[in-house]
Amino acid sequence: MFSTTRSLEKIVQSYKNELRRQISKTTSVTNSDAMAPRLDQPANKTPTNEETGLPKKLLKLQKYHRFLSTLTPQQMPLAARGLAVSKDQSREFMACFPDIVRDLTETSKHVDVPEASRWLAKLLQYNVPNGKKNRGLATVLAYKMLEKPENLTPENVHLANVMGWCTEMFHTHQLLLNDIMEGTEMRRGAPAWHRRPDVGLSSINDAILVQSAMYSTLKKHFHAKPYYKNVIEMFNEMLLKCSTGQFLEKAMAKTDKPDLSQFTMEKYLTIAKYKTAYHTFQMPVGLALLMSGVDDLETHRQAKTILLEMGQFFQIQDDFLDCFGDPAVTGKNGSDIQDGKCTWLAVVALQRASPAQRHVLEEHYGSSKPEDVEKIKELYETLQLPHTYSVYEDATYDLLRTQIQQVTRGLPHDLFFKILDNIFRRNI
Amino acid sequence: MFSTTRSLEKIVQSYKNELRRQISKTTSVTNSDAMAPRLDQPANKTPTNEETGLPKKLLKLQKYHRFLSTLTPQQMPLAARGLAVSKDQSREFMACFPDIVRDLTETSKHVDVPEASRWLAKLLQYNVPNGKKNRGLATVLAYKMLEKPENLTPENVHLANVMGWCTEMFHTHQLLLNDIMEGTEMRRGAPAWHRRPDVGLSSINDAILVQSAMYSTLKKHFHAKPYYKNVIEMFNEMLLKCSTGQFLEKAMAKTDKPDLSQFTMEKYLTIAKYKTAYHTFQMPVGLALLMSGVDDLETHRQAKTILLEMGQFFQIQDDFLDCFGDPAVTGKNGSDIQDGKCTWLAVVALQRASPAQRHVLEEHYGSSKPEDVEKIKELYETLQLPHTYSVYEDATYDLLRTQIQQVTRGLPHDLFFKILDNIFRRNI
Repeated sequence: MFSTTRSLEKIVQSYKNELRRQISKTTSVTNSDAMAPRLDQPANKTPTNEETGLPKKLLKLQKYHRFLSTLTPQQMPLAARGLAVSKDQSREFMACFPDIVRDLTETSKHVDVPEASRWLAKLLQYNVPNGKKNRGLATVLAYKMLEKPENLTPENVHLANVMGWCTEMFHTHQLLLNDIMEGTEMRRGAPAWHRRPDVGLSSINDAILVQSAMYSTLKKHFHAKPYYKNVIEMFNEMLLKCSTGQFLEKAMAKTDKPDLSQFTMEKYLTIAKYKTAYHTFQMPVGLALLMSGVDDLETHRQAKTILLEMGQFFQIQDDFLDCFGDPAVTGKNGSDIQDGKCTWLAVVALQRASPAQRHVLEEHYGSSKPEDVEKIKELYETLQLPHTYSVYEDATYDLLRTQIQQVTRGLPHDLFFKILDNIFRRNI
Repeated sequence: MFSTTRSLEKIVQSYKNELRRQISKTTSVTNSDAMAPRLDQPANKTPTNEETGLPKKLLKLQKYHRFLSTLTPQQMPLAARGLAVSKDQSREFMACFPDIVRDLTETSKHVDVPEASRWLAKLLQYNVPNGKKNRGLATVLAYKMLEKPENLTPENVHLANVMGWCTEMFHTHQLLLNDIMEGTEMRRGAPAWHRRPDVGLSSINDAILVQSAMYSTLKKHFHAKPYYKNVIEMFNEMLLKCSTGQFLEKAMAKTDKPDLSQFTMEKYLTIAKYKTAYHTFQMPVGLALLMSGVDDLETHRQAKTILLEMGQFFQIQDDFLDCFGDPAVTGKNGSDIQDGKCTWLAVVALQRASPAQRHVLEEHYGSSKPEDVEKIKELYETLQLPHTYSVYEDATYDLLRTQIQQVTRGLPHDLFFKILDNIFRRNI
């Protein structure tokens, strides 16, 4: 169809630019109507009338767009939802965790400090395995799809599961620290670790213990592997990306009042890339590539490009769910508005707001008073952000599918489709 | 003189045990008189009468022991103080720092986030180079003494300086986090980083940025070296040791009131080993050994044994200076008593206290009221802890000198003597 990948890449890029241009239009709300709902939507994505269990608030939002699929995953049959990871895989992954904890805490190693080992076990069990485990499961999935069949021995699959837990420990280190900095109350449906009366600010040190546990696990299992050095360097590079992202986000909230003039789409996407996309999307696939013996730079670059794009969208979803998701499902009370964060919703709202509406944002954004938060949410609905979001979600899905088809270098397209389908249609 | 190293080791051990037994005697204060001042003290260690610049409080303490040398370093000529590192070496080390900062922050690397690079430069400059740089200088010193002369090229010496700065960045990561957890106000004569109005809890993320900067520097300079993997693993192991030490210390202060029944010498020494000795003493020499191509386990073990011993003593000094040092010299206001920490002074005081004196400790230790702190300090003086400390200091010095002479495996005794002389007679 196309003579070179380059020419198709150009077309995809111009489509993407057009999409962003439309989303970025600031003149009026109705402009977003220019983006018609996709008519080629497969039947299985259409919400059915079987709406049991769907929170009332979300049902209300559905009126905006019949393809507001982030809010309706329960309504689709499992197969159609494209869940990338089977229950068996999930069980296999979970079964590996106790071994890791045991290896880390067996008293023979630190016989002079048994209380430290007991604490580490408690800390790991409370904080590491209770999330969605997206990063860990994606690592195992990617390894299984990238490795040559003859190398998919039980030992290597076990190693991939161990590597998956290392990505989860990496993420836990980040979560523990971010929860302190942001004063998060709830995490994964339970009190955030630092809120426990026996923890408090010691949670900072506990985060370092989790990070050390990650390095110990890497050393124990991968020390003699040819890819060990590259794996360690990837983890260390991800540490730099995440802390840079965290800095960029915090830099916007240095003063009492958020500076809305700084809330641009460009800045937003940069933060999302550093804060989320690198370690949530690039890292699992990058590690799996290294484990399966791929260290060709161009292959890593191609995977990275598309995975960072997915990661940015994942953060946009996160922002949407923080405001419009159901705490009973997400396991946390959204507080982006209260915290005055530079979210996708705030950026798009600013793009579309009339001078009067901008004034509402300037007056009430970043306040923790419930009435202020309510005003912002009302404005978001007036500006039809849920509608825009759902249009954007569908368009991004299409765009990413097209991009995946351009990937070369023997990277299996199915892997990216699975990761894509796993993040789309999520509600958590 | 002795048939095997083993037999001398045994004698040293029994001397050590006797020393500890005496220090640990709990019956009465006067027991400490059994440890007579060393009469073979070299002349250059005797304090002169030229006491200009010595704080009044310290002069008062000198009455306890004429060899209270920790308090009188200013009185000794530079050469006699056995400063291990020359001014030239210190200048060479400092000259290397701007290059490291430049490498880390040149915008070409993170062109999309120039503000993050600017912040990193500021963060590193404020926090990394303003301490005593013991760990960094010891790394360079050790490398120069361990490496074969023909390998002491300018390139390799430069690399040793870079490695030294990596140990300093490692330490800065620890300091930034510990200062938040402990609410430290002052550090190195300036407000602690987290006390700055533009920082606060973001200091947690800044600590991670410094840690990432360390890993980036290691990668940039040592990526292709045969010892790279072992160096990275040493840093990661030190991270585990430090966070374990921090946990052990915090575990004692979980409640409002410190539990003095837990304050034993054994526990104290374990905390000191994990919290301080590993990364302050073992790490610099361990890294230098790796850089000079030594990865023989027995050599590392021998060096570790003696260096951990030195590290424990260093922590004892630290505790002493926290209480009896001069803030104008140490650059920080001691708060161990207020924080209810398990210090060497508290442990020895408990060993020697009468029931009435123990009651004073139980009533007033761990309170931030100035009158409570004063009561504890008075008790320490009544129990003659400065005297005991000075006796212990001299005895430890002798002991460590003897131990150094037992070191084999081609480890240069001079290196350990220099490190020893560098930590003794310090007042900061």
